Amino acid sequence: MAARKRRSAINTTTAKPDPDKTNPETVQCFIGFFITVSMIPVASKYVLRRNLFGFDINKKGTSEGSIKVPESLGIVVGIVFLVVAILFQYFNFTADSNWLIEYNAALASICFMILLGFVDDVLDVPWRVKLVLPSIAALPLLMAYAGHTTIIIPKPLVPYVGLEIFDLGWIYKLYMGLLAVFCTNSINIHAGINGLEVGQTVVIACAILIHNVMQIGASNDPEYKQAHAFSIYLVQPLLATSLALLSYNWYPSSVFVGDTYTYFAGMTMAVVGILGHYSETLMIFFLPQILNFLLSLPQLAGIVPCPRHRLPRFNPQTGLLTGTNDGTLVNLFLRQFGQKSEKTLCILLLIFQAICCGFCFFLRWILTGWYK
Amino acid sequence: MAARKRRSAINTTTAKPDPDKTNPETVQCFIGFFITVSMIPVASKYVLRRNLFGFDINKKGTSEGSIKVPESLGIVVGIVFLVVAILFQYFNFTADSNWLIEYNAALASICFMILLGFVDDVLDVPWRVKLVLPSIAALPLLMAYAGHTTIIIPKPLVPYVGLEIFDLGWIYKLYMGLLAVFCTNSINIHAGINGLEVGQTVVIACAILIHNVMQIGASNDPEYKQAHAFSIYLVQPLLATSLALLSYNWYPSSVFVGDTYTYFAGMTMAVVGILGHYSETLMIFFLPQILNFLLSLPQLAGIVPCPRHRLPRFNPQTGLLTGTNDGTLVNLFLRQFGQKSEKTLCILLLIFQAICCGFCFFLRWILTGWYK
Repeated sequence: MAARKRRSAINTTTAKPDPDKTNPETVQCFIGFFITVSMIPVASKYVLRRNLFGFDINKKGTSEGSIKVPESLGIVVGIVFLVVAILFQYFNFTADSNWLIEYNAALASICFMILLGFVDDVLDVPWRVKLVLPSIAALPLLMAYAGHTTIIIPKPLVPYVGLEIFDLGWIYKLYMGLLAVFCTNSINIHAGINGLEVGQTVVIACAILIHNVMQIGASNDPEYKQAHAFSIYLVQPLLATSLALLSYNWYPSSVFVGDTYTYFAGMTMAVVGILGHYSETLMIFFLPQILNFLLSLPQLAGIVPCPRHRLPRFNPQTGLLTGTNDGTLVNLFLRQFGQKSEKTLCILLLIFQAICCGFCFFLRWILTGWYK
Repeated sequence: MAARKRRSAINTTTAKPDPDKTNPETVQCFIGFFITVSMIPVASKYVLRRNLFGFDINKKGTSEGSIKVPESLGIVVGIVFLVVAILFQYFNFTADSNWLIEYNAALASICFMILLGFVDDVLDVPWRVKLVLPSIAALPLLMAYAGHTTIIIPKPLVPYVGLEIFDLGWIYKLYMGLLAVFCTNSINIHAGINGLEVGQTVVIACAILIHNVMQIGASNDPEYKQAHAFSIYLVQPLLATSLALLSYNWYPSSVFVGDTYTYFAGMTMAVVGILGHYSETLMIFFLPQILNFLLSLPQLAGIVPCPRHRLPRFNPQTGLLTGTNDGTLVNLFLRQFGQKSEKTLCILLLIFQAICCGFCFFLRWILTGWYK
């Protein structure tokens, strides 16, 4: 099996470890953060000039509701992310590391997704085309993927299945493609209130980072460690640039993020999950998104009529949002916990996201014995 | 020297040669051509809706001069190119080929360039920022480049220099970065009449293809052959998709190509020149662009005032173009050879491009003895 042979050759040629030095990646991430913070106002002027703006529907009826809010600022985050992630190679890989194939394929996939996201923001492609875009962008990754295509059967089930490891072959690659499609679209549709798109990304990225650090600490297998180190290289700049965007997108938003950002963030997390070999863990971090997707299914499938924006109703007198019957987690929260201000609702949803991530860590802890 | 060590390991793991089969790449390129042809009219409607259009200045005063011509159709070419080039990997590389690093880095660079080109088309970034964009997009390539950084001293000069091979080290990487900047910008400024941007790309791409095929035939070194095969993998889809665009962009243009296309085409050719190790040959293919650049220098440097468009003057009565004093090859041709129609002028310039490519092949032939 050629793929396995190549991967096993990595052990001798992994990253350049140099614990004595101050960490150059962290410095780069800080620089990336500040560049993003200073570029967003500049880019805002340019996108406004091109009529790329939206009105904040959840503030309709107030003076804030008539301000033109610049759209698609995810493009700044995406470009800064790419530059930082590209420069990371210099510090993290030797020139003969086989991980460079996956790293460059990951960069190509993420870059392709940003491109398609921005094209979507500018040209506003039809709904059905939107769904296909992430699977096109995931192509470089699927082509270059040389990792395992196996799943480990939980120990208590081994006697019944008769196998410890089950090789899925091309079905595994199909699964990876669908994962990329799911991650990008699920972040894209769990949206609609100030700060939610970026907020959920920041929470999940933090969880991924913690997971990676824990796994590196717990393992002695250099290949396994390298897979998680690889994941850190991509999540660090995602977190840094997203935090910069959040400072503008937090309630009350002075910029909107656009499909550019949601696609970019979703694809980056899918890529790290796939190449770091913990896509199952990633799916539990994505529990709120899965819930939101299931709630949205009747409308997405066309069984229930689907308006263009599935937002709660805003009352300009009280400044509070009320849940509607549209099937989203945002509306479910409002129906369950009563009227909320936009900011409080966003904080509640992000706390729920954090609880799901915590639940995932708990689940991993109790299930440790199930896998060898 | 780690880089050399890695490269030399390739000999055992090059492409999958299978001369008995019908060539799947050619089939893919045909499909890419037809998809581009059928997508351009669809995309034209979308870009027009977003007010991405231009008026054909060289037809001002005629009825054709008042038609809104859709802009930035290079985005269709770029996306189709990427998909075709990504799928090529499946046919051309084994999973353990070290060329995959360069290939994915090339894809990342080209994709990044398309993204920045489209951002430029949409947001119309300032002149000084435009110049920097290609050097940002070239980063993945420079980071992943593991080839030689040496130049071969021509045999008659060896006694004077005292060296046969001279290692330039990081200066060679700087040269590659500057080459990418030059190729993208030089195609971008050798423009302004219908069909010229795409036409010059088609002529140079044909020359590159011929050069690659000749070199593969003439050499016995598998590494050298592979470098030229690599170049073919990227030039084939460039040629196929560009021809599709040319069918719309040829006089009278029904679409404009935008910076998206010129940047994309320039970067793709720079990438194949660099990774195929024939950047000097490429520079001779680019002779008209070099000439145009030198003619433009006084205006680019700000010594002579530079208008936004440096176009010839159009006479709506005769339908002919007259050269102005702006320093471009287009104007030089008109001043030297008298008034011409736009179509004739474009054909003349493309013939000149083809002559330069022919001159390059002649030069390589007489200089053969100078290098071992």
